[in-house]
Amino acid sequence: MDKRPIGVFDSGVGGVTVLKEIQKLIPNENYIYIGDTASFPYGSKSQKTIIKLCKKRIEDLINNNVKLIVIACGTATSQALEEMQKIFNIPIIGIIEPTVKYLKDNNIRKIGIIATAGTIRSKGWEKKIKQNIKESDVQSKACPLLAPMAEEGWINNDIAKLAVHEYVKDIKNIEALILGCTHYPLFIDSIKKEVGKNVDIINTGKMVAKEVKDYININNLQNDKRNKGITKIFLTDIECNFINVAKKLMQIEDISIKKLNN
Amino acid sequence: MDKRPIGVFDSGVGGVTVLKEIQKLIPNENYIYIGDTASFPYGSKSQKTIIKLCKKRIEDLINNNVKLIVIACGTATSQALEEMQKIFNIPIIGIIEPTVKYLKDNNIRKIGIIATAGTIRSKGWEKKIKQNIKESDVQSKACPLLAPMAEEGWINNDIAKLAVHEYVKDIKNIEALILGCTHYPLFIDSIKKEVGKNVDIINTGKMVAKEVKDYININNLQNDKRNKGITKIFLTDIECNFINVAKKLMQIEDISIKKLNN
Repeated sequence: MDKRPIGVFDSGVGGVTVLKEIQKLIPNENYIYIGDTASFPYGSKSQKTIIKLCKKRIEDLINNNVKLIVIACGTATSQALEEMQKIFNIPIIGIIEPTVKYLKDNNIRKIGIIATAGTIRSKGWEKKIKQNIKESDVQSKACPLLAPMAEEGWINNDIAKLAVHEYVKDIKNIEALILGCTHYPLFIDSIKKEVGKNVDIINTGKMVAKEVKDYININNLQNDKRNKGITKIFLTDIECNFINVAKKLMQIEDISIKKLNN
Repeated sequence: MDKRPIGVFDSGVGGVTVLKEIQKLIPNENYIYIGDTASFPYGSKSQKTIIKLCKKRIEDLINNNVKLIVIACGTATSQALEEMQKIFNIPIIGIIEPTVKYLKDNNIRKIGIIATAGTIRSKGWEKKIKQNIKESDVQSKACPLLAPMAEEGWINNDIAKLAVHEYVKDIKNIEALILGCTHYPLFIDSIKKEVGKNVDIINTGKMVAKEVKDYININNLQNDKRNKGITKIFLTDIECNFINVAKKLMQIEDISIKKLNN
């Protein structure tokens, strides 16, 4: 039995979509979530900057005695996961590998990816897909404004719908569309309308949740099954729209948030 | 005669609208521009974070031997200018005072302000207006997505137009609308259509340019009139859309940009 919390971090509120999926699968675990809101958005930053920021946030989580870390951010996974796994001696799970495993297991080859500019530029998804899935056909599109829109709560208005249309319209003839940024499940209704019901829209949070559960079970890191999990949320900048969006997302009213030094 | 450059900084490409106006008035001066793109956007950050960032960027400019500093950013002016003027022994000009002076001189009292969330929250504009203009009536509106849209080059598409409409539609019965963020002159056509031709739309860059010219003349800091001014541009993160937007803005092709340590 291991009471230590699972650490989850993102540049902002996007990672809450991942946290929520993990909590659904293993609600008895304790969680620490860090939203690096002082440095939001990661999506437009260079790899060097993102590596520096990830290092800081992982150190914060380790200082909070976590047993496992989830990088709940597409940009940070694609640009910094490998480096972080080299530096730190703690299990770190990103959003790419669990998703590629799902695609492979389901024999999906025609794949669309939408993500931040940094993620698309890094080709992190393409590389992992090509390594694992033969004859894959990948179309990718950077959507730099979707995460900021989500962060401000513009999710279902005409502007968000139009932005989704603008970004997704040229992706054709795919079996699955990966939401390569953890903010994007917030736009899932608009995205579904845009790509049609035959496309498997992949919420990476669901894939990560399964991976985390498996890892914990295989390595005997489970918390007491009778435990009612506690979630602590820290932000590097608290003067932002995080609480409002997170409340909607998590469908809870009593979110308590603490300031973390940047 | 003083050859030293004028230092200008912003969180991104917005301040180039200010730089351009200053260059128009005093083209014989040399300029150093810093775009703090690694920390963009300032607009959603706390005052403490913004003060820390401004301090760093001003130190960078001082290390480049500037004679005068322009904070070409609404958020940084409203949240950090006073603090910076206390810390540093160099003239620092923000975008608020020159604009309020213009409003006062032209007896404008019904005033709209659009700006970032941080600027609006700080009430920096309102305070300065109330101090200087009797019986003023101020309506303000935070527009958190306009600067990110400009930074990505979405300036004249339907999404930008709809966003401008969404932000400006409730501001009624004004004589002047202050573009309280230096990115917003990029949307001036859409804004004009929205507020009508009887409203004086205030590009703060023009006001700042006049103030800088006056300051330099009064204090005998002018460069040689025959000089062809040189502009050096530094960014804290170079992997961004800055060059494309800046080229359009400055209508020049040969922008050379250097990386500045963050």
